[in-house]
Amino acid sequence: MSAGLKAFLQTSGHQVEQTLKHALSDQSNAHALFAAMNYAALGPGKRLRPALVYAAARALGGKEAIALSHEAAAALECVHAYSLVHDDLPAMDDDDLRRGRPTCHIQFDQATAILAGDALQCQAFELLSASPLPAPLQIRVIGELARASGARGMVAGQAIDLAAVEQSLTLAQLKEMHRLKTGALIVASARIGALIGGANDVQLAAISRYAEAIGLAFQVQDDILDVTADTETLGKTQGADAARNKPTYVSLLGLDGARAEAQALHAEAARALNDVAAGVDTVDTRVLQQLADYIVERSH
Amino acid sequence: MSAGLKAFLQTSGHQVEQTLKHALSDQSNAHALFAAMNYAALGPGKRLRPALVYAAARALGGKEAIALSHEAAAALECVHAYSLVHDDLPAMDDDDLRRGRPTCHIQFDQATAILAGDALQCQAFELLSASPLPAPLQIRVIGELARASGARGMVAGQAIDLAAVEQSLTLAQLKEMHRLKTGALIVASARIGALIGGANDVQLAAISRYAEAIGLAFQVQDDILDVTADTETLGKTQGADAARNKPTYVSLLGLDGARAEAQALHAEAARALNDVAAGVDTVDTRVLQQLADYIVERSH
Repeated sequence: MSAGLKAFLQTSGHQVEQTLKHALSDQSNAHALFAAMNYAALGPGKRLRPALVYAAARALGGKEAIALSHEAAAALECVHAYSLVHDDLPAMDDDDLRRGRPTCHIQFDQATAILAGDALQCQAFELLSASPLPAPLQIRVIGELARASGARGMVAGQAIDLAAVEQSLTLAQLKEMHRLKTGALIVASARIGALIGGANDVQLAAISRYAEAIGLAFQVQDDILDVTADTETLGKTQGADAARNKPTYVSLLGLDGARAEAQALHAEAARALNDVAAGVDTVDTRVLQQLADYIVERSH
Repeated sequence: MSAGLKAFLQTSGHQVEQTLKHALSDQSNAHALFAAMNYAALGPGKRLRPALVYAAARALGGKEAIALSHEAAAALECVHAYSLVHDDLPAMDDDDLRRGRPTCHIQFDQATAILAGDALQCQAFELLSASPLPAPLQIRVIGELARASGARGMVAGQAIDLAAVEQSLTLAQLKEMHRLKTGALIVASARIGALIGGANDVQLAAISRYAEAIGLAFQVQDDILDVTADTETLGKTQGADAARNKPTYVSLLGLDGARAEAQALHAEAARALNDVAAGVDTVDTRVLQQLADYIVERSH
């Protein structure tokens, strides 16, 4: 990872954690609920989605746009965190380990984990309703997040993923599942940041292509790491997807084919960033490019 | 139930079902997910929260406000429906029967029920982001719903309720639990309708008192019916709360004491409605009064 990206991720990660800590400070009698929400949202993590919000906002709108992005960055992390908590439940993927720690329902209990996930999703929209953006832009951002998170976005992807266990998927079906399950929220992160930065429709379409490419690349790299990294490096059970007979890029394309796919997606992301910047001097996509580099180079 | 209220509930119920059917028409590959969402949101139900949105909007803003309330009414029903689906899960209340039908996780499976609940919550905010209200009012409505539904509202109430099983609660603790678990969303329904109708701060405070009173009255009547009605009339297992050793108004106050409490809350609701209407000719609180009457008179 480049020194520039490392500094950017540290700053954006610190900022989103401050916003989340403030939002999740316990103000009710439901102490276990808040403890579980904090555990899920503020544990170790890459904070990739908040970083994308900030990076896209800065690329299009400079430092002023960053200052308007805190609530949106935290909202994206809340939705991501809630989805992991519910995904790990026994009735879903039944995972005991996440980012090197017991999953939320192991650390607390299933009921608390279900409720903490529910409340984190709600917290995302509460954060967005309190952002300093002009109201029409605020509404547009809320609509983007809602459409990306729900039954035609992330949740649809989770439903298709669950139905795919023990099934054979084609490569097209696998891509569609990931486009929804993880891609929709990654695309929403980049689009929301770009909207806050003042993107026009052409720039918005280009940044969506960038985010779709890195979203799929992220998943391809996940599938590669699932078979090449050990459990300690990964922070979750190594080989877990293969053990559940889940179709992966590696099972469909082989390890070399998956690596070639990651490189192709990386190239597509770079082309899309050229289109984001085309003809506009003030657009600076360097951090977005570094994020794309990191996603295909990462080892955990 | 008065003929006037019956007609109002039929119209508002029909309208919210049309809005929900449109919002939940299957537009993705996740067919089981959409089937479960439709099953949960469009099964038999009182549609009390949408009715409150419409009734409060009409009381303050007349027929024009009703036309602006469809998305909000449907959003309230989505949040209510999602909360029931998750509440019924084995890790939560573990109920097999709801409104005379198998609960969502029995009809489908647990994973689908978890995801359908998640997607219904998200659908609520998607609906609100697409409402025709002026953007600043839209943002205010979204904030009201988010605060009422989340970790300082409904979800906190559910967490406190779960922790209360096998515990002895004082009457004050029981009221606080219900104020959050069911009251918060009922208050939000009335406040959101009133906001759409153009309520000023005094009217908004008065309608909140009205809704707090009928919200608690609704719960007191639920506890009374849990011991006096049979399972068939109730559409859920009779005596279920008592069997789980959950504290209820009846267990704390006795049957006569609970009935007196319901009457006192009914009187408080009527006083609050007087304050909503005070000095303003155009305010018509009749349907809201009839809703309060119905809540303490209902037999299921």
